[in-house]
Amino acid sequence: MTERPKNIALSPDGSAVRIVDQTRLPGELVFLDLRGRDELYEAIRALRVRGAPALGIFGAYAIYVLSLGYGAADFLPRLDEDAAVLIASRPTAVNLERQIERIRVLAHRMDGAPADELRAAMLAEADAIRAEDAAMCRAIAEHGLSLLREGDTVLTHCNAGPLATSEYGTGLGPLLLAAERGMDLRAYVDETRPLLQGARLTAWELQNAGIDVTLITDSMAALAMKEGRIQAVLAGCDRMAANGDAANKIGTLSAAIAAKRYGVPVYILLPSSTIDLRCPSGDAIPIEQRDPEELRSLWYERPMAPAGVSCWNPAFDVTDHDLITAVVTEKGVVHPPFDIHLKELFGGECT
Amino acid sequence: MTERPKNIALSPDGSAVRIVDQTRLPGELVFLDLRGRDELYEAIRALRVRGAPALGIFGAYAIYVLSLGYGAADFLPRLDEDAAVLIASRPTAVNLERQIERIRVLAHRMDGAPADELRAAMLAEADAIRAEDAAMCRAIAEHGLSLLREGDTVLTHCNAGPLATSEYGTGLGPLLLAAERGMDLRAYVDETRPLLQGARLTAWELQNAGIDVTLITDSMAALAMKEGRIQAVLAGCDRMAANGDAANKIGTLSAAIAAKRYGVPVYILLPSSTIDLRCPSGDAIPIEQRDPEELRSLWYERPMAPAGVSCWNPAFDVTDHDLITAVVTEKGVVHPPFDIHLKELFGGECT
Repeated sequence: MTERPKNIALSPDGSAVRIVDQTRLPGELVFLDLRGRDELYEAIRALRVRGAPALGIFGAYAIYVLSLGYGAADFLPRLDEDAAVLIASRPTAVNLERQIERIRVLAHRMDGAPADELRAAMLAEADAIRAEDAAMCRAIAEHGLSLLREGDTVLTHCNAGPLATSEYGTGLGPLLLAAERGMDLRAYVDETRPLLQGARLTAWELQNAGIDVTLITDSMAALAMKEGRIQAVLAGCDRMAANGDAANKIGTLSAAIAAKRYGVPVYILLPSSTIDLRCPSGDAIPIEQRDPEELRSLWYERPMAPAGVSCWNPAFDVTDHDLITAVVTEKGVVHPPFDIHLKELFGGECT
Repeated sequence: MTERPKNIALSPDGSAVRIVDQTRLPGELVFLDLRGRDELYEAIRALRVRGAPALGIFGAYAIYVLSLGYGAADFLPRLDEDAAVLIASRPTAVNLERQIERIRVLAHRMDGAPADELRAAMLAEADAIRAEDAAMCRAIAEHGLSLLREGDTVLTHCNAGPLATSEYGTGLGPLLLAAERGMDLRAYVDETRPLLQGARLTAWELQNAGIDVTLITDSMAALAMKEGRIQAVLAGCDRMAANGDAANKIGTLSAAIAAKRYGVPVYILLPSSTIDLRCPSGDAIPIEQRDPEELRSLWYERPMAPAGVSCWNPAFDVTDHDLITAVVTEKGVVHPPFDIHLKELFGGECT
């Protein structure tokens, strides 16, 4: 496999979070060093960094980098304020909030310690979050691959690859692992309007890994399934409720409904940290609304619709649990009924 | 209602077909005068003129304009050759073939008549085709409107408005008629990737008519229905089989599958000339495959995916008859079972 760029790391001098600017792919591979709260916030908001696990890792390093500017006297109040601002940047993704909270709670537990010790502990925790994610992604890929057969073609939506995580990804993990092992799996990739993460990121990642990729518009997925071109749908997840309802990029619901009609299994792949047992069903998951201009023009440049036309631009939808064949986490494959089996597997650990 | 431009007419000197170049909307309203076979063919192929009924009208005028260059000796052979070329430009749309054939058969029936007489008869027939279409669209709009209630919001896909026909359109007819009568109907408009006919044309036409329009990506239609935002799906049709299977712009199938899940009625609006009783089911409808570059870049300008990535780009899909609540033609509303009721209503006339 071609080497994948590390998409989230500290800059060599340790003063900034270094990311791959995902909005510049696939045309250019650009790294950004981010230091200030405004630019860290903007990077999330503008989807320069995106993907549920990646947001968690990014949030952890971001809050560490911001803490470099805190004095001993105001350390915790400033940490709390910055944490709240960053968490507010994307309300649907649970990982961002969870991992920032993990750092914040750690720091509060060490109240009274010197600022340098607080920072060292926060950095170690951020490193641990990334290492845990890498191990999780590998395990998810293994479990996901167990559901697929040589020669299968899978449909993917949005981007749940290495760029969205630390390594392997979630939704794309089985494909990347299969490619490493010389197993023949192919992919149809939904372009994923409006921001085209499938066309720009997933197609690029899979091509780099030597996988046979076919790009389609989101609206072609149903026909591809009707014609028998697809043997499984693989998708990541931004937040899963206790009953198995899965919030993911807008359009996942549409693909899952078509899959049900045509008897194609739908597998949702996610770290268990993305399962929110406090959330009873998808109805309780807030759906972020984004800038209408994303629909009216391509990257704010080329108009594609009448100027000023009203738009509805939800960033996510919730795929109801009855449309999901199995949930794949690092701990194994979970089958319905999800309300019982998710709790059994993860109840104690992921609330 | 704001005046709509006449999208297909003879040029004032009668030597060319004058069309609105639909690829330039909504940014610019550009008229083109087309004379040569290559440019007439290209106008269809590049979707400068599009929409099933509009293609029929265009084909009739196009073949007349081409006949201006025929001599008496080679009139019919050249007519046959040009007709075959134009028909081959878009294999899925039945109206193009049907109306060109109508002109061609008329000319053959007059074999031996002077070229001027042949041309005059062909022009009169083209005018008749347009007049019939205008009357049909009005009747379809009336019947379609009978299925809707004050305050309803409808979802539309692609463009089945005046630009796609002669007047009112098919899928948009009820909305435009309601607006004329001061009735409150609203529309969610699928942008319709890859060529964005919904965003560029439908949103523009409905806005011009003073209708409350909300633009969405195709992938948002399922969520809009799940949230109860949509009371009916209205779509046109490029070819309907005898059993009610309806070929229409890619993505119609996806919207119809979601509509079935959420109990939203799906109405297919079309002139009876679009029903092809010789075609037993959707399996027999050829699906045109288009240039992969339509997915890789926006109008061949701005790259949106890795260069050279494989694409699958079907222009149409077939919405199975079990997903269709009613078929609306100029003769009235047809309910299932369509294999029986379509034949009863139209059997003698539209084969």
